Amino acid sequence: MKAEIIAVGSELLLGQIVNTNARFLSSHLADMGINMYFHTVVGDNAARLLSAIEIAETRSNLIIFTGGLGPTKDDLTKETVAEHVNKKLVLDQDALNYIMEYFNRSGRTATENNRKQALVMEGATVLKNDHGMAPGMIFTSGERTYMLLPGPPKEMEPMFTAYAKPLLMEKLQLQDRIISKVLRFFGIGESQLETEIDDLIDAQTNPTIAPLASDGEVTLRITAKHQSSETAIRMIEETEKKILERAGEYLYGYDDTSLMEELAKLLKEKQLTIAAAESLTGGMFQKELTAVPGASSLLIGGVVCYSPQVKREILHVSQETIDTDGVVSAACAQQLAENVSKLMKTDIGISFTGVAGPEDLEGHPAGTVYVGIAIKGEPAKVELLNLAGNRTAIRKRTVKYGCYYLLKYLK
Amino acid sequence: MKAEIIAVGSELLLGQIVNTNARFLSSHLADMGINMYFHTVVGDNAARLLSAIEIAETRSNLIIFTGGLGPTKDDLTKETVAEHVNKKLVLDQDALNYIMEYFNRSGRTATENNRKQALVMEGATVLKNDHGMAPGMIFTSGERTYMLLPGPPKEMEPMFTAYAKPLLMEKLQLQDRIISKVLRFFGIGESQLETEIDDLIDAQTNPTIAPLASDGEVTLRITAKHQSSETAIRMIEETEKKILERAGEYLYGYDDTSLMEELAKLLKEKQLTIAAAESLTGGMFQKELTAVPGASSLLIGGVVCYSPQVKREILHVSQETIDTDGVVSAACAQQLAENVSKLMKTDIGISFTGVAGPEDLEGHPAGTVYVGIAIKGEPAKVELLNLAGNRTAIRKRTVKYGCYYLLKYLK
Repeated sequence: MKAEIIAVGSELLLGQIVNTNARFLSSHLADMGINMYFHTVVGDNAARLLSAIEIAETRSNLIIFTGGLGPTKDDLTKETVAEHVNKKLVLDQDALNYIMEYFNRSGRTATENNRKQALVMEGATVLKNDHGMAPGMIFTSGERTYMLLPGPPKEMEPMFTAYAKPLLMEKLQLQDRIISKVLRFFGIGESQLETEIDDLIDAQTNPTIAPLASDGEVTLRITAKHQSSETAIRMIEETEKKILERAGEYLYGYDDTSLMEELAKLLKEKQLTIAAAESLTGGMFQKELTAVPGASSLLIGGVVCYSPQVKREILHVSQETIDTDGVVSAACAQQLAENVSKLMKTDIGISFTGVAGPEDLEGHPAGTVYVGIAIKGEPAKVELLNLAGNRTAIRKRTVKYGCYYLLKYLK
Repeated sequence: MKAEIIAVGSELLLGQIVNTNARFLSSHLADMGINMYFHTVVGDNAARLLSAIEIAETRSNLIIFTGGLGPTKDDLTKETVAEHVNKKLVLDQDALNYIMEYFNRSGRTATENNRKQALVMEGATVLKNDHGMAPGMIFTSGERTYMLLPGPPKEMEPMFTAYAKPLLMEKLQLQDRIISKVLRFFGIGESQLETEIDDLIDAQTNPTIAPLASDGEVTLRITAKHQSSETAIRMIEETEKKILERAGEYLYGYDDTSLMEELAKLLKEKQLTIAAAESLTGGMFQKELTAVPGASSLLIGGVVCYSPQVKREILHVSQETIDTDGVVSAACAQQLAENVSKLMKTDIGISFTGVAGPEDLEGHPAGTVYVGIAIKGEPAKVELLNLAGNRTAIRKRTVKYGCYYLLKYLK
C-alpha cells in the first residue's frame, strides 16, 4: 500500500496558507502503517491537476485529495477526478438535505452553486461533513483507491477521523494493528536523550522509536505492529520500560498532553489553588493555565509585575532587595512567590523574574531567569535558569520550566 | 519562468512537521511575480528524490530544494542533484572555516560528517548560512536554475531573504519591479469588505487585489508590476485610495504589523502607561503587549482576576455589582478598568470580563464579553462583544477587540 496526498488550491502555491492537512493525514497514515512517499500541491487548474493525478497513479495506489470541493467555479477536484476515472457525478440526497437545512436555519437562500456541493462520484461511499457543506467521498477504480476530502482543516480533520479512517482500515483490510505511544520528556536535550538510548534506537525494528525535539521538549514515539492489539501494547510497554530505566526522571507525560495540562491535572487532583507573579513572562503562565477549561477552580488570579513599582507596591518586594540584589535575583523571586500567594490566599505562589531580552538587565544577559515556588506558606524555593534563544523562546521556556519544577515539587 | 519547490525530508511524510518552508518561499516568489505551479514533498531516499527531480524538470525551470543538507547519511539532496546534473561536489573553504570556528567556539570536535556540510556544487554560487552549518547554493544547468536551501526554517528564511532572493532577481533579470502593500482591517468581515470593493476586485489586472481572512482580521494585498518602482508605488497608492474611500474606517495598519504592535507604537508616541485587569483572557493581553520589545515603559503591570475573590479584594469591584449584575457585566468591566488604573497608577486601565466557554456563566453564553477602557481618570467606557468560536478563538478575539477599541479611543 503506497499512499500519496494531492492538495488542491492556488492559495497554497501563493503562500497564503500552509499545508497542515498533509501533516495531519500523514501522521494518521503513518500510525496505520501505510507508506507515504510523496505529497503534491497543485493549483485550481484542471490540466495541471490532471497531470498530478496521472503522476500519482504511476507510483501510488491510495490517492488522497484535499480541497477543491467548494461551491465556486475554482473548485474542480471532483469534476476533474470524475472525468479522469470516467465516472458520473450524481446527486446525494442526504448531502443536499443537509445543505438546504443549513440555509433554512440561517435564513439565507441556497444558490445553484451550493447544490453543486451535493454532487458525489457515482458508486462512492459518501463521507459526512459535520462541520461544513461539502461531503467527502471514497471509491475504488481499477486497483486504486481515491479519497476526496474538503480543504478547510476544521472540516477535513473530523471527517477523516470519524468516517474516512475507519473505512480505510476496513477497505485495506489492515490485519496488523498499529499502536503508538508518545513519551514526553523535559529537562533533557535531544542529543543527550538519544545518547542514553542509542543502542535501543539502533536495534529497533518493531516497535520503532522515533525521537522529535521542539520548543525545549523531546518526545519519543514508540510504534508497534501486531495482529493482536494486546500484543502490540505489551511490546510497547517492554520498550517503554527499557527507555524509562535510563531517562525516566525526565518523563512528564504521554501522548497529547503538555506540561501545563499535567500541572492542571495534578493541581485539580490535589485540590490546590495557585497564584502567579509574572515579570518577564508578562502573563504567559496564567494565560496558558487558563487555556485549560475548568482552570478557574485552580487559578485564583495573579499579578503581572512588569515594573519595579508593582513588585514593590503590590507584591511588597522590599526596597532593600530591589536596591541590593535587583529585580533579577533569587531574593526577588522568593518574595514575589511568597507574597502573591499571601495576597491571593492560595496554596501555591509561583513567580518569574529575569531577562527576556534582547537587552541585558541589571548587568545580566538575556536568558537569566529566576523561578520562585512557594507551597503552603513554606519559604519559597528558587531555581536559576540560563536559557538560550530569542525573547519569545526565553519566555516560553521559562513558563515550561515553571511547570516542570512545580510538578517535581508536588510529586 | 515556472518555479517548483521540492521539499526533502521523511519527517514531512511522517507528519512530524509541517511544510512551512513551502509557504514562505511561495509567498516571496509570488511577490516577485514568479509563477509557482507545484510543490512536491519527498522523503530521504535517493531514487524517489531523483524521480521528483525528473518530473520537476519536465514542467519547471526554477527548481528550489529545501532540506537534506545536514551532516548525517540521511541527508542526500546535494549528492543526488550533483549526480543527476553531472557536477562534482567541491570543498568550500569559507563554509569549512565557518564550521570549524563554530566547533572551536563551543569546545566540541567536528566530525568527518560536519566537514561534508562544506561541500558545494562545482561552479555554484554559495549562499552563506548565518544561522547554521549548511551553506545553500544556486547554479544553472542547461536552461534550468537550481537552488538548494537548508531545511530548518530559522536557517532557510534568513538565507533566502538576505542572499538568495537578490541573486534570483538578478539572475532572472526581472525587469519589472514587483511591489506589494498589505492593508490590514479589523471590525469588518471578509465578505462585507469584498462586497464593498467588489467592482475593484473584478476589474483588477495590475495592480491585483488579494483578500485574505484569518483570526477575525481581513487583509488586502495590493501588488503592482512596473519597470519603475516609483510608478508601481503610485499605482498602489491609487488603488489604496479607492479602497480606503469605502472601507477606510476599518483600516488599522500596513504590512507586517498587528493590532498589538500598533497599540504599543501609539502608547509610546503619546507616552501613556497602561495596566490591565484580565478575567477571561487570563493574562493574554499583557503577555502579547510584553512580547513587543521595549514594552516595559508602557505596561506597568496588571492583575489576572480570574476568581470573583480577586475582583472584589484586589480590584475592589463592589459586592453589590457582583451580587446584582454579576461578573459578566458592564458594571464589573467598568470598575475593573478604573480600579486597575488607580491601583497601578497608570494613564489607562483596560479590563476584560466575560465567558470564554465552553460552559455558560451566570446565564450568559460563551462569547459574551465586556471590555472596559478607562483613560486618565475619566469614567470607563464599556463595549459589549458577542463573539463566536471556541474558547481559544474567543479569548484571542477579545484581546484584539481590546486593542481595536483602545486604538480608536486614543486616535
